[in-house]
Amino acid sequence: MTVEFISVGTEILLGNIVNTNAAYLSEKCAALGLSCYYQSVVGDNEERLEDTVRQALSRSDILILSGGLGPTKDDLTKEVVAKVFGRELYEDSHTRERIEAYFQRVHSDQVTPNNWKQAMVPKGARVVDNHNGTAPGLIIEENGKIAILLPGPPNEIKPMFERDIAPYLNELQPEGIYSKMVKLCSIGESKAETMVSDLMDAQTNPTIAPYAKTGEVHFRVTAKASDEKEAEKLFAPLMDELFRRFGDKIYTTEEAVTLEEAIVRLLKEQKLTVTTAESCTGGLLAGRITNVPGASNVFQEGYITYSNDAKERLLGVKRETLMQYGAVSPQTAEEMARKVAEAAGADAALSVTGIAGPGGGTKDKPVGLVYVGCYVKGHVRVEEFHFTGNRDKNREYTVARALTLLREELIGYKS
Amino acid sequence: MTVEFISVGTEILLGNIVNTNAAYLSEKCAALGLSCYYQSVVGDNEERLEDTVRQALSRSDILILSGGLGPTKDDLTKEVVAKVFGRELYEDSHTRERIEAYFQRVHSDQVTPNNWKQAMVPKGARVVDNHNGTAPGLIIEENGKIAILLPGPPNEIKPMFERDIAPYLNELQPEGIYSKMVKLCSIGESKAETMVSDLMDAQTNPTIAPYAKTGEVHFRVTAKASDEKEAEKLFAPLMDELFRRFGDKIYTTEEAVTLEEAIVRLLKEQKLTVTTAESCTGGLLAGRITNVPGASNVFQEGYITYSNDAKERLLGVKRETLMQYGAVSPQTAEEMARKVAEAAGADAALSVTGIAGPGGGTKDKPVGLVYVGCYVKGHVRVEEFHFTGNRDKNREYTVARALTLLREELIGYKS
Repeated sequence: MTVEFISVGTEILLGNIVNTNAAYLSEKCAALGLSCYYQSVVGDNEERLEDTVRQALSRSDILILSGGLGPTKDDLTKEVVAKVFGRELYEDSHTRERIEAYFQRVHSDQVTPNNWKQAMVPKGARVVDNHNGTAPGLIIEENGKIAILLPGPPNEIKPMFERDIAPYLNELQPEGIYSKMVKLCSIGESKAETMVSDLMDAQTNPTIAPYAKTGEVHFRVTAKASDEKEAEKLFAPLMDELFRRFGDKIYTTEEAVTLEEAIVRLLKEQKLTVTTAESCTGGLLAGRITNVPGASNVFQEGYITYSNDAKERLLGVKRETLMQYGAVSPQTAEEMARKVAEAAGADAALSVTGIAGPGGGTKDKPVGLVYVGCYVKGHVRVEEFHFTGNRDKNREYTVARALTLLREELIGYKS
Repeated sequence: MTVEFISVGTEILLGNIVNTNAAYLSEKCAALGLSCYYQSVVGDNEERLEDTVRQALSRSDILILSGGLGPTKDDLTKEVVAKVFGRELYEDSHTRERIEAYFQRVHSDQVTPNNWKQAMVPKGARVVDNHNGTAPGLIIEENGKIAILLPGPPNEIKPMFERDIAPYLNELQPEGIYSKMVKLCSIGESKAETMVSDLMDAQTNPTIAPYAKTGEVHFRVTAKASDEKEAEKLFAPLMDELFRRFGDKIYTTEEAVTLEEAIVRLLKEQKLTVTTAESCTGGLLAGRITNVPGASNVFQEGYITYSNDAKERLLGVKRETLMQYGAVSPQTAEEMARKVAEAAGADAALSVTGIAGPGGGTKDKPVGLVYVGCYVKGHVRVEEFHFTGNRDKNREYTVARALTLLREELIGYKS
């Protein structure tokens, strides 16, 4: 089956917001085994929206629209789709009550007569409750075509999709679609893809698709099966093969687990604490570790030592080291890692010192040169990196590589 | 004139990457006064791409395609557009030389015979040099229609657009388009929009459009004028009106200046240094201040004090304060701000303590409760916030509000 997305909203056409809903829906639908050949964005204009909806229904089986379900007269998605399907709108009493209850719970001062427009639904449409907002989701089926209308705000569309739309789409398929995410670090995108190109060429069921992330590679493995047990049977040989080829580079096979979360888990298992001493990343590394709820079990404090004086005074890096080798040197990175572990009384530590750019580079120490030190129980490993992005990218990659280094040391990784 | 975007790439349809190019082009073209009614995404498929190109040319004056200019046989954008315009491809010797020089400079080991495909250009097309990659940009004009082909990677398309495409598009217009960005903090999106709704209703030239960012509101003011001097004359009354209405809430009218950069500038002007003591933001606040190149002039060190012990030991927060009021309290936020300034020998300081979620909330202190302390030369102001997002959003908003608070204290802001 094919699926097509239409994102409705002038704010996307003006570039006011990035269309992250389309990326979200694309990845989710690909994981459900649906093929998507077209996506489009159209503004809050009746004629253009109608043309776009009619074209999409003529070439795809399932049409998912997001946005344009709000309470104002600009919001036209529901009205236009109802017109295309020749359905009248009526007030759905269940939705009216749900919206009333929503306003009693939050924002009770913000209810306007406009809001009751959101309780109007097309005849024969299936109503999907919105647990995070007022506009309901709607599903219209006719002559083998399906239109699914979803609200625009990411915090409304995502839970609605996970809870109701994904199971609905899965049931449409002759076989269920099951997928796993295999997440890797310690390897580059092109190398990882090359290492599975034969598997990708030969794939039928399950299939495998690579997704590049900053400093990571993710493979989504998707199987069509009658039930979860059969899916697991289909996954097993491919997963074994991936583990044979990538081994310790795979840090998780759980969809929701991030690299920082995998590391926090490792630290908990090993009953270790970690601290950080950051120069050019200026807090972003600690910020990423503390993304993990409950990171306080393994992370109690971190230091941002931007100046040489701070490196000396807060961490105890020797002035001679800074004078002789410079702040951006493997020697300083090593000492920062060792000393910050001591200062924080932590079992493990990451240190970062480098030149993020755009200024500050020299011939010997160009922009993008970064040293990361990783201390784990008495041993320090220092890695040198040469990044080629802008300041933001260099900092982002530094954080990803530092986390990877810590993971490698924690698991005794051999490359 | 109307413009339409087609993003070419199966990786967008699969959700492997977010289509940030479309948002970038949308905002830039809106600033150039071009109207965009449609955007679409299509995969690397000849037939579907050709249909999409033909449809776009039938309904818009200018078509901008991004992606699909790579060296592999999957990359079809140039071939399909040349076919639609009935143009043959020939090898452009200038581009061949530029690509050769590019490979001599970087990645000389990666050149493959495929790469010379990128020197093939449609007859009569204008070639736009790519200073950050191999694929050139291409402009084809015919019968009042224009197709512009741009490379997909953001670090190639953005500099090419700024340098060559924006001036080209500007010259097409009967009048030049000039724009300014007015950036505000200390005010919510809906309030700011309400305060300019009369200006928006009455607008002709210049026009004004709001863009909501996390904790900020941006207004883009756009004028059509024969030259920059006339544009400035047109801007003046509206800018005066905006300053009259928003006053100190406007932190910059420079497109490229971020809130953190405006603050770093204020600190430099006032010859002050700043430091940070972060609990729930875990380094993200310092990370944002150090986004600014040259932040080291005003920021030398920062502290992440996640545990109570770290708050006591590193900052010197009194145990009694933590015991009596709790870590998440205005008293602790105040003491953190005062003490961290002392510890770092800084003139100003920001402290953050709160419950980002999802766990850790109680009835008295629910998830989303955050205190931010701001110390400037002896005086501390503490603000209480109640955020309603998830962990990431709560942390992101906390950082934005903390920066806003510091700016308010530095400029002696009166609400």
